[in-house]
Amino acid sequence: MKKRISIFGSTGSIGVNALAVIDHLPDQFKIVILTANRQWETLVQQTIKYRPETICLVDETHADKVRDALSHLDIEIVFGRDGLLELASRKNTDLMLNALVGSAGMEPTFRAVTAGVDVALSNKESLVMAGSIITKAASENNAKIFPVDSEHSAIWQCLVGESMEDVRRIILTGSGGPFRNRELSTFDKIQPEEALKHPNWDMGNKITIDSATMMNKGLEVIEAHWLFDLHSDKIDIVVHPQSVIHSMVEFNDSSVKAQLGVPDMKVPIQYALTYPSHVEASWKRLDLIEMGTLTFEKPDFQRFPCIKLAFDVLATGGTAAAVLNVANDHAVDLFLKHKICFTDIPSIIETALDKHMYIANPSLEDLLIIEKWTSDMINNGKLL
Amino acid sequence: MKKRISIFGSTGSIGVNALAVIDHLPDQFKIVILTANRQWETLVQQTIKYRPETICLVDETHADKVRDALSHLDIEIVFGRDGLLELASRKNTDLMLNALVGSAGMEPTFRAVTAGVDVALSNKESLVMAGSIITKAASENNAKIFPVDSEHSAIWQCLVGESMEDVRRIILTGSGGPFRNRELSTFDKIQPEEALKHPNWDMGNKITIDSATMMNKGLEVIEAHWLFDLHSDKIDIVVHPQSVIHSMVEFNDSSVKAQLGVPDMKVPIQYALTYPSHVEASWKRLDLIEMGTLTFEKPDFQRFPCIKLAFDVLATGGTAAAVLNVANDHAVDLFLKHKICFTDIPSIIETALDKHMYIANPSLEDLLIIEKWTSDMINNGKLL
Repeated sequence: MKKRISIFGSTGSIGVNALAVIDHLPDQFKIVILTANRQWETLVQQTIKYRPETICLVDETHADKVRDALSHLDIEIVFGRDGLLELASRKNTDLMLNALVGSAGMEPTFRAVTAGVDVALSNKESLVMAGSIITKAASENNAKIFPVDSEHSAIWQCLVGESMEDVRRIILTGSGGPFRNRELSTFDKIQPEEALKHPNWDMGNKITIDSATMMNKGLEVIEAHWLFDLHSDKIDIVVHPQSVIHSMVEFNDSSVKAQLGVPDMKVPIQYALTYPSHVEASWKRLDLIEMGTLTFEKPDFQRFPCIKLAFDVLATGGTAAAVLNVANDHAVDLFLKHKICFTDIPSIIETALDKHMYIANPSLEDLLIIEKWTSDMINNGKLL
Repeated sequence: MKKRISIFGSTGSIGVNALAVIDHLPDQFKIVILTANRQWETLVQQTIKYRPETICLVDETHADKVRDALSHLDIEIVFGRDGLLELASRKNTDLMLNALVGSAGMEPTFRAVTAGVDVALSNKESLVMAGSIITKAASENNAKIFPVDSEHSAIWQCLVGESMEDVRRIILTGSGGPFRNRELSTFDKIQPEEALKHPNWDMGNKITIDSATMMNKGLEVIEAHWLFDLHSDKIDIVVHPQSVIHSMVEFNDSSVKAQLGVPDMKVPIQYALTYPSHVEASWKRLDLIEMGTLTFEKPDFQRFPCIKLAFDVLATGGTAAAVLNVANDHAVDLFLKHKICFTDIPSIIETALDKHMYIANPSLEDLLIIEKWTSDMINNGKLL
């Protein structure tokens, strides 16, 4: 029987890669739902090609065009944020791939796991901001959360068949970004254009800046905490510029397992869709001989204070990680617009954390209020 | 309940390391049998300390001394090769660690698996020489064979929870030995003393020469074939001078898993004893940051013809691998005694393979005859 898959955010990079995975495994999957935010033309093309049962376009500006373009097909079309949330609550899917961008992805994850639907999670914000709420809902409703990004997929793969009791620590690898060797005293002069020259993965601008500040590793530490139910003192970071080892697990007997591969998001996406199988795929293979050398360095917390902030918010709990995440989003945006300097990013986050009204056990609504407060404060220049 | 363990070859390096593992896990294991070849004093000390039910001293020269030294203990003592083989057939043990050296270990492995006893296998010759016979007996009697050497333990660990159907290939790593960068035209001038300066593992002389010729990888290819039921075209070798990655598995989706660690035989020994658990141990941990750099190179079959010979005998099947193994043993011995030169080692093996009476489906007895024939031919200088 085909696995019934819904892709939330099907027109973005992860969504498109997921459809490429499904293209080469046509017998394994039935696409139930596709959703897009604004890219209605791509959504229409995908709908014609994949014939999902239901689609959602969140931005309703071009609703009529979508209806017209698909009028010859028997496909349910819904619109708006409410439509998206209603679809996320449906139980008629085996696996939701949540490839939504930003905090908009948080509630759909919550709705899916509450409906008992397993989630292949690419949306970082779901667990970073609402890890406690979402993992509780998943556990209560017997829904599983499968990681999609390469680091957590690596950890997950290394843990297959193993007991969490045997895990001494996990080791997230990070490229260290473009500034790991730059003179620290010049960090305030870093321009967005320099930061955007990231060598290993083809990523969006936001994530590329997160890689330059190493906040991406910080966010991954928080995600790993929730995905694998690990205390932060069992999560370490190693700088590994070649990004070949995607992450590692050290067991109690000092045996270390690592997952390696080429930088291709299709590998972790497919694994989340086909777990526990590693299904044959013809994409590029890792050639360690061609690669020649892998190197490892200690992460420099002074150079990359965002990492330390992430560990701090894990210790703080409650609303802290949500504030960190939203503050980082906006600070990166201001940096990309040349409105603040590179070293302002961690400062703004730290100020936001200091000033926000902390709630120890927030609801999803609390988190949305915190999100708005943090955005407003930063955009009004009150945290600089 | 304690796991009942027998250690065949308890006074050698693997045996002593196994007892050190058991020392730190006293609640988990009961030692049933200990055996030694000639080191009777060490065997007596071990017997007094660990109180096995039965011991065996193969070389009977000092039988009386052993009897006297242990007369105050209620311990069964047997002697000779026949005693050893009888003990290997006993069903009163959960796991036999076969740490015997050389082809003398082959029949005890066969006897144990035939008795339905699981074997933690350090004795390379068992599978290299008699892989077909032993894996068949194990399968028929529902006995498992757990690898003890670091490369196969690495593969085994990477395969935990995975399906063999998903395996594209395994990649055995090898240090490349001391001559991987030496001018090939000077290989006939290599002296044993140069070969014995091996950087990574503390090993015996025979294995150190095998590392210098890379025959150790060749033998591991043959072992891996039998342990994991993999065709030789699914087994690759990568030279990795730091010996940190102990081996790897590439899956069909191009995901690669690796097992890493410090060079300490206690890790794979303990894993074979405590499988599937990675039990807490206080020994040295891998520090990739301190290590800094890992490198990978293509193995040079011209420089290391022994690797190619090993792949060839896998293709040939039957008695070929046994001849390769025995011829290698004796050729290495002659090299260590300065009687032949380094490049004679593969030549002698090749001549032995050419000249021997091939049997497609040999019995254990056939293999013992082939062993004697090969030894005699080499020691009489007929294969030079």
